[in-house]
Amino acid sequence: MQFSSALLETAVNEFAKLPGIGKKTALRLVLHLLKQDPGAARAFGETILKMRQEIRFCHRCHNVADADICSICANSMRRKDMICVVETIRDVIAIETTQQFSGTYHVLGGIISPLDGIGPEQLSIDSLVERIQKEGVTEVIFALNPNIQGDTTIYYIQKKLAAFPVKVTTIARGISFGGELEYADEMTLARSISNRLPVESYVSHR
Amino acid sequence: MQFSSALLETAVNEFAKLPGIGKKTALRLVLHLLKQDPGAARAFGETILKMRQEIRFCHRCHNVADADICSICANSMRRKDMICVVETIRDVIAIETTQQFSGTYHVLGGIISPLDGIGPEQLSIDSLVERIQKEGVTEVIFALNPNIQGDTTIYYIQKKLAAFPVKVTTIARGISFGGELEYADEMTLARSISNRLPVESYVSHR
Repeated sequence: MQFSSALLETAVNEFAKLPGIGKKTALRLVLHLLKQDPGAARAFGETILKMRQEIRFCHRCHNVADADICSICANSMRRKDMICVVETIRDVIAIETTQQFSGTYHVLGGIISPLDGIGPEQLSIDSLVERIQKEGVTEVIFALNPNIQGDTTIYYIQKKLAAFPVKVTTIARGISFGGELEYADEMTLARSISNRLPVESYVSHR
Repeated sequence: MQFSSALLETAVNEFAKLPGIGKKTALRLVLHLLKQDPGAARAFGETILKMRQEIRFCHRCHNVADADICSICANSMRRKDMICVVETIRDVIAIETTQQFSGTYHVLGGIISPLDGIGPEQLSIDSLVERIQKEGVTEVIFALNPNIQGDTTIYYIQKKLAAFPVKVTTIARGISFGGELEYADEMTLARSISNRLPVESYVSHR
């Protein structure tokens, strides 16, 4: 692309660095900002700057936070004895959106994946163990993606937790609500049979 | 979506205002910026701010510019007696990228479209007429999208230019290179037959 303005070109290139945004989309976004009144475009730029400069990570759970402690950890209504272990901040948002969990979180920052060069030492596992030692935690719920890396991570952490009097669970895996048995993969179907639930408990959750 | 950080939420909302960007994509982009080192995210925000504050529109052709006059108008190698009339800045970029045009541009800022409430007075038509009066222009090339609005705009401007000794042309319309006759719409096919070219002139353009 040939630009007649260096300012425009730089802005397009910055947008095109974002994942899934090509040059043509970047140009469309920049021209959209140019069409807005200056206040709107300034608000956009300033919000990004402010977000990156001021955002912090919770000292307790490593979730994004506006202060030293995130709003979930700081909320006295949340059960501090229940920790839901997730891979990323996105998973926290996904679970929070369901409004079904009243405990706190622990963001690992990834999962153990030797092929990608990610070992346990790069994840916030030590701080999880420390929380369990100090905070009187009674249950650790793993909400990791159901794949080999997720299972490896659960296995590794679970062994570290064996010394503590804590219940270790994982979110249910099985056929998605609205899914069709016919199209489920064998692994999921096989697991959902071996982990079958008594119908009473299923009905009581509806 | 439930966010545990107001900074994150504001940033996601700003991104989600952009055209074609939903909340989930916005979150992905913001988390990408968060993962980058602070310098990269700051560069992104600052570039947008700087672009919006400093970008100007060329006094001559209304293209985006870093100064009072855009780099195309300021280039002494470009033919000033040839003006290519386009609808938007994007069209300038598209034509510049072909590297086939050595004249200058005139950005109308839209096309006449009564249904959208856009009349000639909202477009930069007067400044085009003024340029033709003052700059010794010999040819005006219309490069507007081939539709009713484009044709209406050409017809309107062409009548205004009748008083001046200037050649008025439009870019060729016809079957796209690589296109298939079978799938071309009737209007395009009919026009491309009535506007047929002598084969010599076609071959000499290859």
